[in-house]
Amino acid sequence: MDFKFLQELLVPAQTKIVLLIMDGLGGLPLEPGGKTELETACTPNLDALAGRSILGLTQPAGPGITVGSGPGHLAIFGYDPIEYEIGRGALEALGVDFELGPDDVAARGNFCSVDENSVITDRRAGRIPTEVGRELAEILRTIKMDSVEFFVRTVKEHRFAFVMRAPGLGDALSETDPLKVGGVTLPVRALNCESEIAAQYANQFIEQARCLLANKHPANMITLRGFAKLPHIPTYPELYGLNSAAVAINGMYRGVARLAGMEVLHVCGETIADEFATLEKYWNDFDYFYMHVKKTDTCGEAGDFAGKVRVIEEVDALMSRLLALNPDVVIVGGDHSSPAVLKSHSWHPVPVLIYGKYVRPDGISEFGENACSRGSLGILPATHVIRIALANAGRITKYGA
Amino acid sequence: MDFKFLQELLVPAQTKIVLLIMDGLGGLPLEPGGKTELETACTPNLDALAGRSILGLTQPAGPGITVGSGPGHLAIFGYDPIEYEIGRGALEALGVDFELGPDDVAARGNFCSVDENSVITDRRAGRIPTEVGRELAEILRTIKMDSVEFFVRTVKEHRFAFVMRAPGLGDALSETDPLKVGGVTLPVRALNCESEIAAQYANQFIEQARCLLANKHPANMITLRGFAKLPHIPTYPELYGLNSAAVAINGMYRGVARLAGMEVLHVCGETIADEFATLEKYWNDFDYFYMHVKKTDTCGEAGDFAGKVRVIEEVDALMSRLLALNPDVVIVGGDHSSPAVLKSHSWHPVPVLIYGKYVRPDGISEFGENACSRGSLGILPATHVIRIALANAGRITKYGA
Repeated sequence: MDFKFLQELLVPAQTKIVLLIMDGLGGLPLEPGGKTELETACTPNLDALAGRSILGLTQPAGPGITVGSGPGHLAIFGYDPIEYEIGRGALEALGVDFELGPDDVAARGNFCSVDENSVITDRRAGRIPTEVGRELAEILRTIKMDSVEFFVRTVKEHRFAFVMRAPGLGDALSETDPLKVGGVTLPVRALNCESEIAAQYANQFIEQARCLLANKHPANMITLRGFAKLPHIPTYPELYGLNSAAVAINGMYRGVARLAGMEVLHVCGETIADEFATLEKYWNDFDYFYMHVKKTDTCGEAGDFAGKVRVIEEVDALMSRLLALNPDVVIVGGDHSSPAVLKSHSWHPVPVLIYGKYVRPDGISEFGENACSRGSLGILPATHVIRIALANAGRITKYGA
Repeated sequence: MDFKFLQELLVPAQTKIVLLIMDGLGGLPLEPGGKTELETACTPNLDALAGRSILGLTQPAGPGITVGSGPGHLAIFGYDPIEYEIGRGALEALGVDFELGPDDVAARGNFCSVDENSVITDRRAGRIPTEVGRELAEILRTIKMDSVEFFVRTVKEHRFAFVMRAPGLGDALSETDPLKVGGVTLPVRALNCESEIAAQYANQFIEQARCLLANKHPANMITLRGFAKLPHIPTYPELYGLNSAAVAINGMYRGVARLAGMEVLHVCGETIADEFATLEKYWNDFDYFYMHVKKTDTCGEAGDFAGKVRVIEEVDALMSRLLALNPDVVIVGGDHSSPAVLKSHSWHPVPVLIYGKYVRPDGISEFGENACSRGSLGILPATHVIRIALANAGRITKYGA
């Protein structure tokens, strides 16, 4: 997909687009011949909308590829997730709502247990309670150096996000976790010249952490993995001229949206209804809204088929509030599949509907995997969705005469 | 699309292919749940042919992109319309049946009105009648220079096609139209070294035009836009070994066909029936025929739903004459959509059927947008169509053992 080609064809318009993502939407039947979660759910509003929409199945990163939520979101936002890779460290920092800047190198941190010879005896420090993790993070925050800023943010239990901030740091850095009990924690090595200084800073941080944590067994050492800066991604305002906003509760999705140049709105509360209220509140202020529903994925990963069905029904019941705003284009889809029977993300293509005043409806009044597989969009790369939405929003002019 | 890969697999055959293009064929219903133009039209012959064909929806330049007829035709001819761009000036010259050569730089010309300070007071010279445009073009034709040939062809009203012919001219030239009333006409600037001489010629032409038109108010000046040479395009005989012909009445389509190396046949008359008569007349002389029906698009752009329906029915009634010739492969499709409700070209994928003795028919005896969305071809790039046609015509041999 050539951004430059598209950008030359973009024209302003007074139209509004809503992208509603149910995380891990795609599913599987519980038994052969059965229905998926989405097909099981009673969704009169989505079914009616489907009848006025074009349907298809999206693939975030090509056939057979299961993606994490990071690449899944990049894809449905229109970015090739293979070209624009978000490293694990950066995802971890985004996940705790850390506002990663262009000078930041992030990593996933673990507290771990080591013996007197620095040999790892427990890679997760006995899964210390999150509260203990927070106290230890406070201790790590006392580590200061003149030329670099360090940030430590507790994630959960033994996990934390680590960030180094200084101009010109590289992120080609080896990991310190030997990935097995019985191994020695490794020093950080620079994998290119630009990353030499970052390696020094990281090693100095680790040595100070070793001293500060010496008597904190089982959490008497740390490991750092997945060093990564944020990729530079052309933003929605730059690419599409879209004044765009994100409605999402969880940090990682807020982070990926911020990466794409969306303004991340404050949601009062934590329910899906609160998210729809946020959409209503800011409706007049933006051209494009990305809305994220997390619980479909949480249920899918937990193997909770019925729970995922209920979340989808909850979203369906709220659709009337969205449609009452009279959006010009509505996309309902997912970032990837998370079938409850697999208790994990999966490679299955994800149902999508695109509604607009000028779509040529498929005439299929049902929103489900099987219905979408019969839709006119067929199986399409998730990256195509934004283009079709922009066209239907009157934001792409004619190419050539 | 890799031409080289395909070319190595091509084999000669005694088969005939017909590509019948109804310009702007794709449409939209007048009201929700209604039928498109093509679905409304009574088309017993096309429906019967569809039942023996494979169906799909073509995209000329990817999802969401609306194309002009130039790129739309390049795509259905098998050329990537983004790689092979035909500039506006070249299209204007092709549109008046000017036989653009490889040394020619073409531009769109406008007569305009300027005041004594060269400030534009009317960018279209009050839309002078075409007859006045012709008289003024005669005047411009008196401009001569030794090292370059100039051509001026009236298009309509204040518009004309302008062509400079000399070896080695570049076409990276800035436009002279300030695009607003109150601006001064600009000189042509070369945007690269190869175009310096072309800029000089154009400016000398403009200065002579200014003198010759001085007392011809309101058409007392010209502007030139969209300077372009023809792209070099590998031709049908070169690419496919096809001895190919075009049956088209309007200049632009004749021009694009000529660019693709087709022999442009003379059509006696201006009706669609006259085009079918031309096909019959030359049937024995070529392997491949491109036939172009313009009025579907004209009606679509005029918002004339019923008119577009009638044109499609007129084509349907003539299909028996085409099929009586016993072609091996028949493609019926369009270069883009032009829904009457939008009164313009649009991004909607375009219905296509491919008939051949050895297709595996979809068993859908209906030719329409919805029927085609259920066809086995799905949504496909328009550039793929020629390959499927060649295969069905026995013109592609096996790859590998």
